[in-house]
Amino acid sequence: MELALLYSGGKDSSLAALILNNFYNVQCVTGSFGITDDWEHARRAAARLGFAFQTLDLDREIADEAVELMLQDGYPRNGIQRVHEHAIERLAQLDIDAVADGTRRDDRVPTISRAQAQSLEDRHNVDYITPLSGFGRHAIDQLVKDTFDIEVGPSETIPKADYEGELRQIIADNHGPGTVAEVFPDHTQTYVHGISE
Amino acid sequence: MELALLYSGGKDSSLAALILNNFYNVQCVTGSFGITDDWEHARRAAARLGFAFQTLDLDREIADEAVELMLQDGYPRNGIQRVHEHAIERLAQLDIDAVADGTRRDDRVPTISRAQAQSLEDRHNVDYITPLSGFGRHAIDQLVKDTFDIEVGPSETIPKADYEGELRQIIADNHGPGTVAEVFPDHTQTYVHGISE
Repeated sequence: MELALLYSGGKDSSLAALILNNFYNVQCVTGSFGITDDWEHARRAAARLGFAFQTLDLDREIADEAVELMLQDGYPRNGIQRVHEHAIERLAQLDIDAVADGTRRDDRVPTISRAQAQSLEDRHNVDYITPLSGFGRHAIDQLVKDTFDIEVGPSETIPKADYEGELRQIIADNHGPGTVAEVFPDHTQTYVHGISE
Repeated sequence: MELALLYSGGKDSSLAALILNNFYNVQCVTGSFGITDDWEHARRAAARLGFAFQTLDLDREIADEAVELMLQDGYPRNGIQRVHEHAIERLAQLDIDAVADGTRRDDRVPTISRAQAQSLEDRHNVDYITPLSGFGRHAIDQLVKDTFDIEVGPSETIPKADYEGELRQIIADNHGPGTVAEVFPDHTQTYVHGISE
């Protein structure tokens, strides 16, 4: 069975890929608005883990909507959620049996409710799977430590390909770097270099 | 890392065992009130899948409480939930790193909320993992079909070791088989005979 996984090159989506690999032919897919080349980081991480990779074109309009939300709110949560829902919808339109993402139990965003999941499945005739949604933060940290060779650092310095990089870029271009720092609080990210020896 | 999985010999907990086996040393554990030998079915299924097995003594008082709930309600849901919470608490007291069960996304019972999960983790210093909670019914049916050699049939004829068998027995002993049929609506169960060829 063919499965398309929303993939950033980070620890969560990389762990999701390994779990799903037991049952599906996993394709790592990175959404891109065409604003930056951040997806290249995901391509390299997928290659190191041995997974097929492709990019998925996202609507530039959705990026602008998301940025508007973030500026109104003063924080990124609802904008990220908007982009994630769009990406999952796009993913479900591929010719595949199942779609997945790396959402964890303790994530506050992005999050897809059970009702949204069932609607997505019914409308697109796919399974929607979140293989990490039954794992808490501590369990995931343990599994990542045992499994991957990773790099951890502040969000803006870690090579990654989630939606954040492109949205930061739009905000920086239109409103300056000061506004990026206002909207995105400091947090750390991880990037997967490969399976540990 | 050592993980204790609540195990019935059915498809859900068997699939959970296979997923967790990538990361943990999985021990299949079947709760028993000491009323029937139903746990023997789980022991045999675990052996066929190559997993270690042990039983877990459950409090007979909890079984009686659960039966009371079921008779009051006229359906088994709250009674099953009561027993499940007790079993998970007992499981978390074992000398292990993580506990797990086979709860699926679309299960209405048993279900452990995120807050309950975090409380369990904090109080017992374990991870609580539900590896199937990100999989819907259709996805699980597909994976089971591809993975296991199973037997499907009405609940009362399939050899299994969930809490239902013992609770049915208590009700039959105290109130007669007619009351069992009133409380438990007809439903099908599965039993795992092994990995398919």
